[in-house]
Order: sequence, then structure tokens, then C-alpha cells
Amino acid sequence: MRLLLINPNTTASMTEKAAIAARAVAGPGTEIIAATSQMGPASIEGYYDGAIAVPGMLRELKERQATGYDAAIICCFDDTGLEAARMFCDVPVVGLCESAVATAGFLAQRFSVVTTLERSRILIDNLVQRYGMGGRARVRASDIPVLELEDPLSGAIGKLRAEIERALAEDGAEAIVLGCAGMTDLARELQSIYGVPVVDGVAAAIKQAEALVSLGLSTSKRSSYASPLPKPFLGAMQDFAPTPVLA
Amino acid sequence: MRLLLINPNTTASMTEKAAIAARAVAGPGTEIIAATSQMGPASIEGYYDGAIAVPGMLRELKERQATGYDAAIICCFDDTGLEAARMFCDVPVVGLCESAVATAGFLAQRFSVVTTLERSRILIDNLVQRYGMGGRARVRASDIPVLELEDPLSGAIGKLRAEIERALAEDGAEAIVLGCAGMTDLARELQSIYGVPVVDGVAAAIKQAEALVSLGLSTSKRSSYASPLPKPFLGAMQDFAPTPVLA
Amino acid sequence: MRLLLINPNTTASMTEKAAIAARAVAGPGTEIIAATSQMGPASIEGYYDGAIAVPGMLRELKERQATGYDAAIICCFDDTGLEAARMFCDVPVVGLCESAVATAGFLAQRFSVVTTLERSRILIDNLVQRYGMGGRARVRASDIPVLELEDPLSGAIGKLRAEIERALAEDGAEAIVLGCAGMTDLARELQSIYGVPVVDGVAAAIKQAEALVSLGLSTSKRSSYASPLPKPFLGAMQDFAPTPVLA
Amino acid sequence: MRLLLINPNTTASMTEKAAIAARAVAGPGTEIIAATSQMGPASIEGYYDGAIAVPGMLRELKERQATGYDAAIICCFDDTGLEAARMFCDVPVVGLCESAVATAGFLAQRFSVVTTLERSRILIDNLVQRYGMGGRARVRASDIPVLELEDPLSGAIGKLRAEIERALAEDGAEAIVLGCAGMTDLARELQSIYGVPVVDGVAAAIKQAEALVSLGLSTSKRSSYASPLPKPFLGAMQDFAPTPVLA
Amino acid sequence: MRLLLINPNTTASMTEKAAIAARAVAGPGTEIIAATSQMGPASIEGYYDGAIAVPGMLRELKERQATGYDAAIICCFDDTGLEAARMFCDVPVVGLCESAVATAGFLAQRFSVVTTLERSRILIDNLVQRYGMGGRARVRASDIPVLELEDPLSGAIGKLRAEIERALAEDGAEAIVLGCAGMTDLARELQSIYGVPVVDGVAAAIKQAEALVSLGLSTSKRSSYASPLPKPFLGAMQDFAPTPVLA
Amino acid sequence: MRLLLINPNTTASMTEKAAIAARAVAGPGTEIIAATSQMGPASIEGYYDGAIAVPGMLRELKERQATGYDAAIICCFDDTGLEAARMFCDVPVVGLCESAVATAGFLAQRFSVVTTLERSRILIDNLVQRYGMGGRARVRASDIPVLELEDPLSGAIGKLRAEIERALAEDGAEAIVLGCAGMTDLARELQSIYGVPVVDGVAAAIKQAEALVSLGLSTSKRSSYASPLPKPFLGAMQDFAPTPVLA
Repeated sequence: MRLLLINPNTTASMTEKAAIAARAVAGPGTEIIAATSQMGPASIEGYYDGAIAVPGMLRELKERQATGYDAAIICCFDDTGLEAARMFCDVPVVGLCESAVATAGFLAQRFSVVTTLERSRILIDNLVQRYGMGGRARVRASDIPVLELEDPLSGAIGKLRAEIERALAEDGAEAIVLGCAGMTDLARELQSIYGVPVVDGVAAAIKQAEALVSLGLSTSKRSSYASPLPKPFLGAMQDFAPTPVLA
Repeated sequence: MRLLLINPNTTASMTEKAAIAARAVAGPGTEIIAATSQMGPASIEGYYDGAIAVPGMLRELKERQATGYDAAIICCFDDTGLEAARMFCDVPVVGLCESAVATAGFLAQRFSVVTTLERSRILIDNLVQRYGMGGRARVRASDIPVLELEDPLSGAIGKLRAEIERALAEDGAEAIVLGCAGMTDLARELQSIYGVPVVDGVAAAIKQAEALVSLGLSTSKRSSYASPLPKPFLGAMQDFAPTPVLA
Repeated sequence: MRLLLINPNTTASMTEKAAIAARAVAGPGTEIIAATSQMGPASIEGYYDGAIAVPGMLRELKERQATGYDAAIICCFDDTGLEAARMFCDVPVVGLCESAVATAGFLAQRFSVVTTLERSRILIDNLVQRYGMGGRARVRASDIPVLELEDPLSGAIGKLRAEIERALAEDGAEAIVLGCAGMTDLARELQSIYGVPVVDGVAAAIKQAEALVSLGLSTSKRSSYASPLPKPFLGAMQDFAPTPVLA
Repeated sequence: MRLLLINPNTTASMTEKAAIAARAVAGPGTEIIAATSQMGPASIEGYYDGAIAVPGMLRELKERQATGYDAAIICCFDDTGLEAARMFCDVPVVGLCESAVATAGFLAQRFSVVTTLERSRILIDNLVQRYGMGGRARVRASDIPVLELEDPLSGAIGKLRAEIERALAEDGAEAIVLGCAGMTDLARELQSIYGVPVVDGVAAAIKQAEALVSLGLSTSKRSSYASPLPKPFLGAMQDFAPTPVLA
Repeated sequence: MRLLLINPNTTASMTEKAAIAARAVAGPGTEIIAATSQMGPASIEGYYDGAIAVPGMLRELKERQATGYDAAIICCFDDTGLEAARMFCDVPVVGLCESAVATAGFLAQRFSVVTTLERSRILIDNLVQRYGMGGRARVRASDIPVLELEDPLSGAIGKLRAEIERALAEDGAEAIVLGCAGMTDLARELQSIYGVPVVDGVAAAIKQAEALVSLGLSTSKRSSYASPLPKPFLGAMQDFAPTPVLA
Repeated sequence: MRLLLINPNTTASMTEKAAIAARAVAGPGTEIIAATSQMGPASIEGYYDGAIAVPGMLRELKERQATGYDAAIICCFDDTGLEAARMFCDVPVVGLCESAVATAGFLAQRFSVVTTLERSRILIDNLVQRYGMGGRARVRASDIPVLELEDPLSGAIGKLRAEIERALAEDGAEAIVLGCAGMTDLARELQSIYGVPVVDGVAAAIKQAEALVSLGLSTSKRSSYASPLPKPFLGAMQDFAPTPVLA
């Protein structure tokens, strides 16, 4: 089984970190193909960055078709462009946020998601609601710029731990979900410190993708996620046209 | 007051039709600046088309800053890229779906939205839920490809009327919202045929944009819609970086 | 365009203040006709006051028909008698709360409503939920009796500011809605102090009423808001019978 | 125990029918005091009628205080003026809709409410949602004007039975709630015909009122239902001022 | 009228206390038959205890059929096995939590439930949501093991009062629901101390059961609560088979 | 990895069928230990059967601890006793319904669950709502007694297919979830017939259990699912006491 792990931001070090986490949990027959978007923002902090990141992510989905993959994981907790990717692909596509909150739902009745910046908090809260966990989960921001997670001297981990402690004390959280792909290396240690399940989206998404492939299930092509219709695409986007005119 | 009406698809005839509708309802001091995206799909039918359309829409928002506008209207019923646009702009930005359903809420306790293709139905239903009207509105598709609305011989109007009649008979709809920018020219006539309010998103959005400008209100820059943070954008997207390095 | 601004309480000074706010935002061709109820409570603080205020408000709606109006605004943040007024009138009727929260929805994903007394807080919270903003807005009371807003020495503004500050600090509010018609003169200043959008219901309602009239839209007469059926009304209420017997 | 059963419409024959139903279920020590509003509409069909009916209902609540009552029942399925009555009274006040749906909740997981006219359907649906039964109950109208229920030759019962049969067939209803005080005499027979629980609001409300009195419970005077504040009431409503100025 | 009050835990002293509370509010013609489960946990603290308690509770329901009862009350605030009991019985069955929150709904728009241990809090919160009161009620735990309520020296009452005070101060609670059958003797005194309605589930459930019996209403046997189908039950559970094979 | 697949009903042929399905999707290192409850009903059709089945299921969980397992799957679509099992076990426990709807959520925005009898429909609908999929999924019954699924001549498959076809035609379902463990052998064929994803709960649950074990995650022991407290259990249930008194 070949899983395409696409980082929709353009920071290769984050892709590397996520790929390590992915490979650490992948099943014996699973190959992780890590890809970094070649066009777009260096990190995704809010809706604008996310919107600009989507074409680069979709391009990777397309270009990697040549060598093949059995499922794709969009490696950003905002689930950047997830619906568009589902329309584009014939294979399953999963997001980190949806995978993480679905996984947490098997472990706890109430949990908290701890993300980076305040500007991402409500975006993620809206996702959590759409995924049906709005009544069970609270989303918190810990005031960490995404790229600070790459810098061990930034103090980011201290901020993250302080926010987790508030979630445990104030929310009655029974589990913690780490709300950024860049936190993937911290899950095990935080779980051992706090004695509650700590769910990392990267790892969770790998297992969900493996599950779907194993089960022979893929995105429904009926209605919402039907393949894009052939039509002209203009300008710089012309190569995104879903079906080139055949000669 | 100058309102920028951006069509996020690249079909200029749809922009023209929308501009006519916009000017028909605009207040005496309002100038409508119609813009058509220069890159992206010819119509927006589902998530994939929508995602690819966003950069072209944002580019128009940026390029038109030189000549100035007081608010922007994203002229697609999917509210394509609305949140990204709100982060980017200092002036108000409104969408057609959110404007139409907010307007319908002043007229009726229960209403139905009639859109084009089944693939757009659930996308719009999700929007309607986010805008808080999920308990009051049902979304229906009438099996019309968007560009057929441009062709008087396509039979599109017959399909649309049949679906409106089902909404009145089966949903107990008290009002109808037309769920595609390309239906903007039909609202008045359908209202007179069916004797219930028929809300067109283009017209509704123009009035909401005028209202916000008149009231001296603009998008909150606290939290969700804070301006994009300066950071590198790579590749074909590099000119979307929010703040170019100053010399 | 003639807009009837009805104060459903009997305090003419509040009507005056609201009329000033209304005229300040009204479009060039809009005439504001301010009316004060001639029967009922001096202020509306809770359900009892509101229920007794409705007949006086409806009487104004009826008596002003002789000189005509194109839409009506019920000038109390409790949206006193709004549904009854919609049944009675053939022209659009809008409320302050519904206009304000709809307007705030275009500006912010999360916002707080700051009203006067605790007894009005849950009443307004129930309205906010019915208008579909329950998941996006928190309602707060600032312990100000309504008529203290008319008295510059009452300390009311200090209490209001303190509550706004709590909303910003504790709720993560991105915008503030002023939850009483008597606060209409404070919106601009508070917006400038706090740097977030501050929405006043009076101004918002004027623009919504103008929008509906401009768009040729009025209350649906199908189902919920159908015109009252002719029938006997007894006693002191007999002149409220919807259709007088024709000679 | 003395229970005040107030009919907020002015049709005494409906009061009589409801009083018979009330006495049939009242406990041995319970006296039913039936009162008919002396001012307002002959029947309540929609929001306008309801709003005009409230002062007459509140007047009965006040005038009957001289002879005393231990709880009050507002005898209309729209729960006309219920919140205002709760503020006014020191004793418990219950409505028919809230009593009926709370009672049905002990009998069935899903049920349908069958009311009279379409114009009352959504009003009641909104109540059902506020009472927390929105996910469990569907509201249906049977196209019966209220006063036709007083006329055995009107065909009303046939329409009501047809709608109940649709509820059983289409909604999977496990129980039926009769959505009009004027249907109170039909419950037992319909229950025996259809073999599912049929809940009548009048009878249900009597038992809820008895329960509250027996339990020594009354309306909370903290926050929403605090007693009306003393203040001037003008014009025809001056005798509704909650506390007359003492000499 | 004979009401069967079943304590699903095996602590007879709790049954006694509940029976006293039940008899104190029962109507003149009501006989309370108190039964204690003969198999299962001494107290019910969380899902595991509750699951093991159900067969013992159902056995009492069955064995007491010989002497007859007109309705049953399951005397635990977790509404232990309520749905199973409704399937089993032909007479009405009510739970404490559902009775208490339905009763509180007639008294207050917002209220708080104060229960014992944190492990029961979310269980009860889930019940409150299913009963439709999720938007109106907050559930709090006071860190009291259930059996400490039987011990006057345990300090349990002090903890309970402290939590009630937090509910009043922080939640804006207008009424309090006591969230454990073992608190039934405290309701009246707490109501007098705090000046808000304090609802006890035991007393509330007795009145709801009396109401259903008086109204001639019983559990719907259509769909969810249809009588158990005859089939083999194996092993230690064989005598729970719903209908033994007739000779 | 050793997964304990417990059938909470006592029909060994259903356990066998489920074990085959489980082994078909299990990963290379996964051993499936199939267990059938030794006490309780032969099938679980509604709440009563389910409640009686729980002790037998918990007993298997306990007895199999001697030989060890890394996670448990409760093999009934009603998720029989799932919360109790989570309190009891230190290893993860998953249910079929929660696994299936979580899985379907990765494949489709709207889907339908097709179960057996009407009496199970609302039970499952309530589960679907608790798992957060209430807005995305409709539950349907196909009028098949559970044990008929074991009989190829029963006509059960025809009924099931008819109901799936109604789901596709009337619900706009994008995917189908099979709502009974006894349907596990039909998923692949139905998927190929209807061209939409068909999710089987048994297979889905195996993959979720594998995922949790691989990820080093287990049920949170904070709050809802804390281990049962030591206390006396009486009578036939005494061996379910969580911690026997140590000598």
C-alpha cells in the first residue's frame, strides 16, 4: 500500500517531521510517499494561507498519479482543500483534523483540541462542528506561530503545555488532540506527562487511510464528491482543467 | 460608494448579467465595478472548481485596490473564497449565499434554496447550516449545468420552475432563494408567477454591501479574519504573499 | 421611501434618539417617520412589559397606514411583537435584534451581544438562537435599567464598557452588538475605542428595511405570516379585529 | 388546590369544553376555575391573534387573584403569553403545548403534533424546538379553522383523522399530540381507534399544574421570570402597570 | 393507584429514604410500593455499575407483576435501564432525570443539575441532551461518592451546597435540579436557603407517574418500545426471556 | 496484536460469520479471537434484549483477560454496553455503529444506515446523533428479523436491497452503512451492485481497533470512563464486582 502524504505548505522540514511520524505508525506493508507543495505559503495560518495553498496541493495529487498511490493524506490540521481533493481523486483522501477528532471520539466523551494561533481556532472549531464533534470538543489556541514549532528554542512547547493544562483544568477534557501537523513529534511525550490520551493528527490520518484502503472503500462519487466536470480553465490555472481535450 | 462585484469564474457573460442585476438595485450613489477572474474555471460546479477559482478571485481583489473600492461582492452562490477574501481586504466582503439567506430570513420562517446541480446542493446546504439557517431552509438541486442558464434554448428555466413548484408543494416553503448567480435575471418574474418572495443573491448582496459601507462597518480584524501574516510564498503563488518585502 | 420607526415603549425621548440614529444612516431618498406607542410601558424590560407593549405598537402600524409607509422597524431590541406585525402589514417589518445579528454575521465569526438587565438576557439569547446565531454569539447583561441610558449621570456607560471588555477578554468576541435601542448613540465611539465592529440595532434595521424595499421584497403571506383572518374581537380589543365589516 | 384555567380567546363554549376535560382528569382535591378572556379574538389562529389575546389573559390572571388560585393553565396550544404570565404570577403557570410535549416524551421517542391551520404549524414547531423536542416531534396542520371544531357538522374530525393517519404512515409517529385546545374531547376516542397514545394538552397541563403545586414548586423569580419592575404604563394599558404608585 | 418505586441499586437504606420522599408527595389515593434490587451494585456510579444493575431492576419489574402496579419509577438519576423497562412493561415507566428536567423546564429557562461524581456528570449531560434540555441546563459534579449521602458526617452536604453556589454564581442558574436519588431529603431545605426552585427527581417522578396513570396514558408499543420479541435466552439470563414457550 | 471480537448475543453462527469478515480485513499481524456470549438473548432486537445481553458480554471481556487481548470489538450494531465495557477495560473498545459511521464520514457527506427492524431504527438513530452524524445520516429499517439474515431462503436480502434503493432514491445517500452485524457478508457485493461505498460495521471496527492499538492509544480513564469503583455487588451479580476484597 502506498500512501501519499502531502504537506500543503512549502516548508520541507515540516514534511520531513510528518513523514517520520507517519512511518512510525504505518503498517508493515505501507509505503509513505512524502510530498511538499511547490507553490504557496510556507505555513498555513488562517483562511487566506489555506486558500492559496490548495492549488499546490492539488498539483501534487495530480503529478504523483504517474507513480501511483492508494490514498492521500493532506498534512495540515485545517484539512486544507480536502473536499476539492476528494472530487479530484479516485482514491481515498483524509484530513488530519477529521482523522484526529474521529479517533478521539473512540477514546473519550469530551476532549479539547489545542492548536497554534487564535486565527486558526475558529476555523478548526467550524471543522469540528462539521465533523459532528461540536458538542464534545472545545478548541483552544496556544499563541504559537506554526514555524516556531520547528525551533526548539522558541518556547513553543511551554506555551502548548500551559494550554493543555488549562484544557484539563477548565474543560474537563478527557483527552487532548494536537491541532497542528507540526506538533506530531510531541504526542507520545505529552501523553505520558498528562496521563490522558493525546491524539496526533498525522498518525491518526495514516491509520484512517490504511483502514479505508484495506476495506476496499473509496470516496463516493455520487453527488458531493463527483469527479470535476470537463470545462475550460483559463490563464495560470489552465492545467488544472479536469479533463484535457482529447485529440 | 464603489462596490467591486467579482465573478470568480471566468465567463464574462455571467459577469455582465450579474452587473446588470447589481446596477438595477444599487442605490443612487453606488458605482458597480464588475470584474471577471482571469484565471480558473468557466463555471463553478462543486468544490474542485471552487478551490481553483479562489486565487483568480483574490488577484482581482488585489489588483482593483489601485483604483479603490468600498466593499466587495463575490459573485457565486457557493461564497467561493469568502473567508480568505475577508482576511485579505480591509473593506467589507459579502457572499451571495449568506446575503440571500439572511435576506430571506426577514421575509419567511421557512424557505427553500433552489440551485443548479446535485453536486452543489450539499455544499450549499453546509453553508446554509453555517449561516444558521439549517433549521429553516431546505436546499434543492434542479439538475441544470450552470452554463445552460446562459442559453435560452436549454430548457433550464423549465427545470428550475419545476423544482420551485416541488419546494412549494413538498417543503411548505414560504419563500424561494435562487441558488446560483446565473439565475439573477429570473427573480422578479418568478416572484410574480408564484406569489411568494423570490430572493436573488446578487441583488441581496449588493444591498448588504451598501448597508455595511453606509454603517461604517467592516470585517473584524480580531481573530478569524485577521490580516494574513507576512511570510514567504513559493513558486507560482509568490505574488500572493501578503506583504512584499519593502526596499 | 418612507420608513416607519415605531418605538413600542412610550418614552418619546428614546424615540427621538433612535430617530436621530436612523436619519444619520438613512439613504438620500429615505424619510424616517418616528412614532411612539401611545399605550403601554415606559420601557421594555422582560416578557411582561413586552407583551403589554404589543397592542400599542400594532395600533401605530395601523394608524400610520393612512399616510403610508414602505416598511416598518420595531425599535426595541427584544423584537417586540415582530411576528404579529408581519402578519398585520403588507410591507416589510424588521426588528433590531434580527437586523443586528444578521449584520454582525457579515463581519465576524463570533460576537457578543451586550444588553441591559439580566431579565432580558435569556429572552435575547432565545431570539439569537431562533435567528440561527446561537452557535456564534454570546449574550451578556450589563446590569443597566433601560431608562438609565437616558441619563448621562447614571453610570450606565461605565457598566456597558466594563461588560464589553469582559466580552472581548472572555468570549473571544470579534465584534460587539449593542443589545438595546437606547444604546444607539454610543456605537461609533465604542467602535473607535475597542477597534472591533460595534453594531447598533437601530442603524442596522434601517439598512435592512431599505434593502428589502429596494429589492421589491416583502413578507411572505404564505403560511406563518398570512394576513389575520377576519373574526370577532371583543371588549377593549375590538378595534384590533383585522377586517372591519364593510357597509 | 384551586387551578385557574384561562381561555385566552373569548369563545366561552371552548372554555366550557376545556373545563369539562380538565375536571375529568383533575385530582380529588382539585377545583377547576374556568375563565374566559373578556377582550380579544374569538379564536387564536397565528401570531397576530395571539398577541392581541395576551392582555385579556393577563387581566384574568390579575382579577382572579382576589379569590385566589394555586396555579394557572393557559388554555391555548400556542402557549399564548406564557412567559409574560410567569413574570406576573407568584404561582406556577403552565401551557398546553409545553405540557403535552413533555408528557409525550415519557411515552414515545418520536411523535407527531397535529394542529389546525397551516399558519399555526410553524409557530408550534418553533415552540416544540424551544421545549427541546425538535428532534423528536414533527408538527402537522390539518386545515381546520379553530371554530369548526365546535361544529359537529364541519367535517373537522374527518380532516383530523386523515392527518393523524398520515403522521402514523409517513412520520413513524409512536404517539400523537393533539395541537389545539378545541380537540380536547377527542383524545380518548382517537387513542382507542389508533392504538397509540394520544395526548391532549388540556388534560396534560392540569396534571403538570397539580404536580408543581403538590411539589411546592413555583416559577423561579431569578432572571428570566423576575417580577415586572414598577414603572409607568400609559393610555389604555395603564392598569397593567405592575405596581401602582403608593400614596 | 399503585406505583412501584424500584431502586436499581441494592442499598435498602436508599430505597427507604426515597420511599419516604415519594410518600410525602404522593396523591391521596396513591400507594407507593418500594422495591430494592436483589442483584447488582450497592450504588450506581458510572456506566459499568448501571449496566450491571439493569437485570436486577428488570427482575423486580417482573416479579412485582403478580401483585400489580399501575406505573413504575426507576429510582436512580441515571435513568438506569429506562428504555428496556419501557419495552418490558405494559404500564408507564418514568425515570428520575427525565422527570426532574421536564419539571424544571416549567419553572425556569436555564437551570443547573448538581450530581455526585465527575464520572456521572457526562453520563447525565448526555441524558439531558437526549431529553432536549441541553441548551438550557448545565450539569455539575460535586465530588460526592453516592453512599456518602447516607452518612451525615461525611461532609457531603457542604460539598453539595458549594457546588450549588457555583451554579448560581457562574451559570446564571434560575433553578437547581438535584442529580442523585440520594439527595431527595435535601430539596426543601436547599430551596428555602437559596430562594430558587430546587427539584428532586424522586418527587418529580412520582408526580409524572401519577399524571400518566390519571390520564390513561401508557408507553407507546409502536416502534421503539414494542414488547420484546419471543426468542431463546441462554445461561444465567434464561429466565429473562420475554415469553416462555407455552405447553 | 490480538483483537477480541465479542458477539453479545448467544448465536454462535453469527459470531462465525463476523469472525470471517474480521479476518478478511485484519492486518497481517492481527489475530482475531472470536467470543460468543454465554448468557443472554439469541439476537438483539431493541433495548430489552440489549440490556440483558450486557452482563454476558462483560463476562467475556473479563474471562478473556487471562489469555490477553489488545483491544475489543463489540459485535452488534447497537453498540451494546459499549460505555460499560470502556470503563471495565484498560485496552481500547470499539463498537460497530460508531466505527461504521466514522468510516462513512470519510467517504461521503450524506449517507444512510439500513438496519433490520423498526424497533432498532430509533435506537440506532439516537446513537448516530450521539456520534455527531445526525445531520449527515438517515437511518432506515428494512423489516428483517435479525436471525433471518442467517437463513438464505428468508427473503431478507431482497428486503435489504429494496431499502437501499429507497435510500439512494429518496435520501440522496452517497454511501450506505449496513446496520447489523449479520449483514457483514453482503457489503462487497452490494457495493458492486450499487456503485456507492457500502460500509460494514464489523470490518470498520476491526480497522479502528487496529488503528488505536497501533497508535498506542487507549480509552481515557479521566472522568466518564474511569475504572469502576470497588464496592459490593449482590446476588447473581456478585462476581461482577470490579475489585474483589483482597485478603
